[in-house]
Amino acid sequence: MTFDLLRQSTDDALALADAIRDLKQNVKHCSQCFNVTEADPCSICADPRRDGSTVLVVEQPNDVMAIETTGTYRGVYHVLMGRLAALDGIGPGELNVTSLLERARGGGVREVIIGTNPTLEGDGTALYLAEQLGQAGLTVSRLARGMATGSSLQTASKAVLADALEDRRPVQ
Amino acid sequence: MTFDLLRQSTDDALALADAIRDLKQNVKHCSQCFNVTEADPCSICADPRRDGSTVLVVEQPNDVMAIETTGTYRGVYHVLMGRLAALDGIGPGELNVTSLLERARGGGVREVIIGTNPTLEGDGTALYLAEQLGQAGLTVSRLARGMATGSSLQTASKAVLADALEDRRPVQ
Repeated sequence: MTFDLLRQSTDDALALADAIRDLKQNVKHCSQCFNVTEADPCSICADPRRDGSTVLVVEQPNDVMAIETTGTYRGVYHVLMGRLAALDGIGPGELNVTSLLERARGGGVREVIIGTNPTLEGDGTALYLAEQLGQAGLTVSRLARGMATGSSLQTASKAVLADALEDRRPVQ
Repeated sequence: MTFDLLRQSTDDALALADAIRDLKQNVKHCSQCFNVTEADPCSICADPRRDGSTVLVVEQPNDVMAIETTGTYRGVYHVLMGRLAALDGIGPGELNVTSLLERARGGGVREVIIGTNPTLEGDGTALYLAEQLGQAGLTVSRLARGMATGSSLQTASKAVLADALEDRRPVQ
């Protein structure tokens, strides 16, 4: 990066320095969903066309971006800012868990979709959240797991095939 | 392959020639599931520990091998030997569809799991089979589709994320 900056004009380098300062000064976390935003609440939480009764819980702000690109999700989000990882010393206190439980129990939320990554730690986090949320009397669901659209049985891993069989669903 | 054979000893090359002849002479299709086999019925159809009332429909014999590696499926198979592809002139008559419908309607089958690949043509085949099988009064299901175990939201395609959201399932 240093040599790249030395090759660029002074103006460009200073513009980058300004942009970095702006980023750290102006970008904060939304007080409702903890996504990164310049305005609070963020543009998703503030959008009246979004369904505030459905909350998708994700690990990181870029997971929100990934889901938004699909254009199919109309609910709101809750960003944990990580996942439970006992070996790294990350417990519920290090994540936005308390705020999620308060939000879920506060009324107005009908369904919480747990969208942590389908990894060992993501699954552990999902299990923990499902237990905590189960007592709040709302629907708790999990992103579907199975074959990736466009893939083939022969290139799928054993774990994916086992999931796809286990979670098979009736054809309407 | 030619240069590789020239480098090998005459014995090795002749052994390969014999193996190829044996393959074409001895390997046939199982009369029940159409998997490749030397014995008829194949070792899976003949195994009394397998559950003959659950039939998993796949496109190719190597799909059977892929599912068998998971070690979790205890039912039997039906190999279509392809998928419907109108542009290539492959209709139901070119595949093992009639035998599947006869098998499903013959009694003894409780569930048919459609395990064609999650591609455009595989999905078209699944839709066609589900319609045909729906009249036989048995459970027709489909392999689950969604996130691959061990993957992450940020590397998943839009189609996969949309599937994972759409097919989300309640946490028990």
